[in-house]
Amino acid sequence: MKATILNIGDELLIGQVTNTNAARMSQMLIAVGIDVCGTYVIGDNAHDIRTYLQHCLDRSDVVLITGGLGPTKDDITKKTLCEFFGSELYENPEALANVRRIFESRGYELTPINRQQSWVPRCCTMINNVLGTAPCMWFEHQGKVIVSLPGVPFEMVNLMETEIVPRLQQHFLTDQIINKNILVQGIGESFLSDMIESWELALPSTIRLAYLPQAGMVKLRLTARGGHDDHNLLQAQIDQAVRDLYPIAGQYIVGEDMENLPELVAYTMKRYGKTLATAESCTGGQLAQQLTAMAGASEYFRGGIVAYSNEVKECALGVNHQTLLDHGAVSEQTVREMAEGVRQRLGADYAVATTGIAGPGGGTAQKPVGTVWIGIASQHRTVAKLMKFGDRRAQTIDRTCFTVWSELIKLVKEECHE
Amino acid sequence: MKATILNIGDELLIGQVTNTNAARMSQMLIAVGIDVCGTYVIGDNAHDIRTYLQHCLDRSDVVLITGGLGPTKDDITKKTLCEFFGSELYENPEALANVRRIFESRGYELTPINRQQSWVPRCCTMINNVLGTAPCMWFEHQGKVIVSLPGVPFEMVNLMETEIVPRLQQHFLTDQIINKNILVQGIGESFLSDMIESWELALPSTIRLAYLPQAGMVKLRLTARGGHDDHNLLQAQIDQAVRDLYPIAGQYIVGEDMENLPELVAYTMKRYGKTLATAESCTGGQLAQQLTAMAGASEYFRGGIVAYSNEVKECALGVNHQTLLDHGAVSEQTVREMAEGVRQRLGADYAVATTGIAGPGGGTAQKPVGTVWIGIASQHRTVAKLMKFGDRRAQTIDRTCFTVWSELIKLVKEECHE
Repeated sequence: MKATILNIGDELLIGQVTNTNAARMSQMLIAVGIDVCGTYVIGDNAHDIRTYLQHCLDRSDVVLITGGLGPTKDDITKKTLCEFFGSELYENPEALANVRRIFESRGYELTPINRQQSWVPRCCTMINNVLGTAPCMWFEHQGKVIVSLPGVPFEMVNLMETEIVPRLQQHFLTDQIINKNILVQGIGESFLSDMIESWELALPSTIRLAYLPQAGMVKLRLTARGGHDDHNLLQAQIDQAVRDLYPIAGQYIVGEDMENLPELVAYTMKRYGKTLATAESCTGGQLAQQLTAMAGASEYFRGGIVAYSNEVKECALGVNHQTLLDHGAVSEQTVREMAEGVRQRLGADYAVATTGIAGPGGGTAQKPVGTVWIGIASQHRTVAKLMKFGDRRAQTIDRTCFTVWSELIKLVKEECHE
Repeated sequence: MKATILNIGDELLIGQVTNTNAARMSQMLIAVGIDVCGTYVIGDNAHDIRTYLQHCLDRSDVVLITGGLGPTKDDITKKTLCEFFGSELYENPEALANVRRIFESRGYELTPINRQQSWVPRCCTMINNVLGTAPCMWFEHQGKVIVSLPGVPFEMVNLMETEIVPRLQQHFLTDQIINKNILVQGIGESFLSDMIESWELALPSTIRLAYLPQAGMVKLRLTARGGHDDHNLLQAQIDQAVRDLYPIAGQYIVGEDMENLPELVAYTMKRYGKTLATAESCTGGQLAQQLTAMAGASEYFRGGIVAYSNEVKECALGVNHQTLLDHGAVSEQTVREMAEGVRQRLGADYAVATTGIAGPGGGTAQKPVGTVWIGIASQHRTVAKLMKFGDRRAQTIDRTCFTVWSELIKLVKEECHE
């Protein structure tokens, strides 16, 4: 079972829009056992669409196409596919009802041009796109499946999740794939690998293990693969493997089924019923933003203070004027007072703080660009740590966030461990 | 002059990493007059690398390749290119010195495997990659140019900017392209188009105009294109066109040469010498993060408060307890007090505030998910605005930020206009 992905759009080709669709679609296909052997970006150009559709059909069993389905003249995917398959367009009543519903809900009049959005080739199965006006089209051709999806990412994702992936699984009776992530922290990849070697060797042949090192942690991914009807068997094997891992490496396991550190922070704070506050200088709000990007942040996140100037460090966080004079804003003393100040003022169980020189300006011989102090405060103590990052601003901010989350989780786990 | 881009890497193909390189490279090529006719992602697979390299050579004058240059066994791009061109690998002294320097700076020992990073095919021109250990390779073959670049984005970008783009311009004597962005706010695209029609018709034939509507503004992009030696002429034409635009639409022009609204906020605050503070509930730090992601934010950004809980709205922003009881956290009264509170407490000239229900939880019949109040406070007055966004959390946060920046710029311009 192989798939190719063809993303159509001049805006992708000229780099005006970054193509995130290919990666999202690949993840979804691979998660159900369909391998992706190539992804292609081409412009809104009939010759290229025909050429690459044939190229993809020659290489794979499934071709997923996105883009070029809008109502304007430059969007020619539907017309080109219709010609390719020797079919003709007709007005699909279900698609028309959907287009009408969307226009009514926005209070717009349905013009003839927009009505044409509901036309699809007779040879395809129309799949309703409830989030947009461009219908999704499923073609079967010489034993292969070609699906044309809208290029708008959230419409594409919704159609893939609710319609296309389940239909592909059913149509091709694809393999069952079950993934399980286990997050490990506080031990290097090679030490971990030695520690769990015998467990790894004893895994059933249906399960593969991957080490996915990330900033601040290692993600272990177990992937079980079996026949179309083996779901229950595979799930039982995965469950057993996870149970067997805890006696060996349990002290380093910080979570399951999470993708990144902010998710792990949210999980940890909720699990132990603790609240959190942030005091940010060099990270400028990114710590707070990472937490609040996830739904449910209000369960544990009290709030944060972005103290970009010294005056704000004093007035909003209670950092001593003398501390700033004696040690400077980027210092262990300041970061400790920031963490302690925000914890008390916002009434949180834990607080984190950052102060540093993200650059490109502001560095000195003693404190070059990339110098960052982080602080973590609890009711019982405050931990401070000096980091030396490079001279790339965005990277310094990202790495500071990762380090803060790592250190916070470490302290919370130490203090709250059952 | 046509180019194709070939991004190699299993991690791209399976969607573990989103391919941002293609868009970045396309932008850089198009900016110097080289059209991109296709971009391709394939795995670390010798057969596919050969097939697609040939495919790209058949389609274009320039083929830019990224990825597969690491020291591990799965990275086979260099070996495959060497075979494709019938060459052999040798240790390049300049590349070796670079690898040695990087290992020494990190305090690591140079192992034989890592030393092999400095081997390149005899038939290529080695281009030193000062930011990493994988050398860049420039091949010329049957009148075409093939460049192999590292896949690490910042290494690729640096090589493209400093070496590859200038060399391509020289090698192919490419057209000169000069772009100029003009940001317009407070007028719809179609009204603007009517207003500047005669100006547009009078533009020299070397200049094209594009309307790029963005959240909260319209970006006008002038693109002048001419022969390899026409830089000065084109620049003069662009300058004249911009000068001619001001008498017609000057009252709507908010900036030049900027890409997005946060840049425009930074420019506006610095231009008028005003300072800014933020009070965020539903945007959760994203306003502050967008400003501080840009260097130089400390010149105008005092700081911000992320008031995720009602207690923090009271204690850190000074919102009245009674206001919250009477009107709720998501209300005009609360957002006004948030904006005014943070402006006074952090001592800023202007302040912005957000409070809303980003969802998915927390909605009610009166205040459904997507209900957002924004507030902008100056020394003289406070403006509040109610927005109704949809039920997608990330989109609501993004749109709230755009609206806040638009409204802030409008108020600052009104109050500070010379």
